[in-house]
Amino acid sequence: MAAAVAASAAKRIKATSVITFVTGNANKLREVKTILGDGFPFEVTSRGVDLPELQGEPDEVAREKCRLASESVKGPVMVEDVSLCFNALGGLPGVYIKWFLQKLGHDGLNRMLAGWEDKSAKAVCTYAFCAGPGKEIHIFPGIVEGTIVPARGPPDFGWDAVFEPKGSDKTYAELDSETKNRISHRGAAIRMLKAFLEERGDAVLGSASSE
Amino acid sequence: MAAAVAASAAKRIKATSVITFVTGNANKLREVKTILGDGFPFEVTSRGVDLPELQGEPDEVAREKCRLASESVKGPVMVEDVSLCFNALGGLPGVYIKWFLQKLGHDGLNRMLAGWEDKSAKAVCTYAFCAGPGKEIHIFPGIVEGTIVPARGPPDFGWDAVFEPKGSDKTYAELDSETKNRISHRGAAIRMLKAFLEERGDAVLGSASSE
Repeated sequence: MAAAVAASAAKRIKATSVITFVTGNANKLREVKTILGDGFPFEVTSRGVDLPELQGEPDEVAREKCRLASESVKGPVMVEDVSLCFNALGGLPGVYIKWFLQKLGHDGLNRMLAGWEDKSAKAVCTYAFCAGPGKEIHIFPGIVEGTIVPARGPPDFGWDAVFEPKGSDKTYAELDSETKNRISHRGAAIRMLKAFLEERGDAVLGSASSE
Repeated sequence: MAAAVAASAAKRIKATSVITFVTGNANKLREVKTILGDGFPFEVTSRGVDLPELQGEPDEVAREKCRLASESVKGPVMVEDVSLCFNALGGLPGVYIKWFLQKLGHDGLNRMLAGWEDKSAKAVCTYAFCAGPGKEIHIFPGIVEGTIVPARGPPDFGWDAVFEPKGSDKTYAELDSETKNRISHRGAAIRMLKAFLEERGDAVLGSASSE
């Protein structure tokens, strides 16, 4: 009986302290941990889960991805989804940016806007967190305003070379990683998630593990 | 015992003769039935099923949609997916065309191509058929080559007003429905599906219902 209680308590502690970052990209876990910092009160691990890639608005896609991830992992999860939203195109390509980058390259992303004066865009990184299957899904959208420009800087980091954040004379690709983390859409989203979990993490994770 | 055999036989006959067209659009069932014609040897009904809208190439999206539909319906299903693929954009917007039409309208679809000389496009209608959960998925891609043009004809049927099929001096929207069915991507896909089911339907549906 005592052993069972102890095992149950151990299970509860484990359930309250480990959050699974569902991603196939090990670099992202490192990036997230850097921004969460040493004092972050929960353990974050990563796991690749084969989730369907859905169509829709950035928030909806992140929400559904998080829901599916929580059902697969059966515990607390966080997921990330990135969009590049051209204002002239009503927010598109949005969540489909990776396909447009793949097919059109940096030059093609610029050419898509040839018919419009407005070259402004939003870089959106949406984190979603869920304490477990059936639990509320919390959305943290990091949004950076900027402009689509001809590529400058190292070309290998997705669309970083064609996005110039507002108020900067450099593209994302031209910034050092510390500066980029400080001003980027991803940094903003992770800091929101961090603040939420530092404030409310015990409450939302505790209620998940008591079931 | 005799009753059980009769019930089983009735179940088998039902399973071999009814194909569920999974769509939320009752008009599409009517359109499909018109093209399948009176002599089509299987009954086709329709049902709305809440399926996720997935990202990917047209064939992949139709295949996965059909797989999920067969699992939901637990019987023979067919599904449809439509893409509009701009050649200058490496096939995009493709399966995402409905979002681009919604956000940009007819004029915006033309303006997206302002940066390219090549205004050619493919209208793709992909039917997928599956005899039941876990069964082989058959893909029938109807493809019509054409050009993206400033809108002409009634503007209410999706992107019909901006697509001019090759060899025609009319847009889809300017064609009467009989002519459109004869030359359209949807007509082509349904005729392929029809030919397949007339040839192989008994075999593929029979093997599904015997399990």
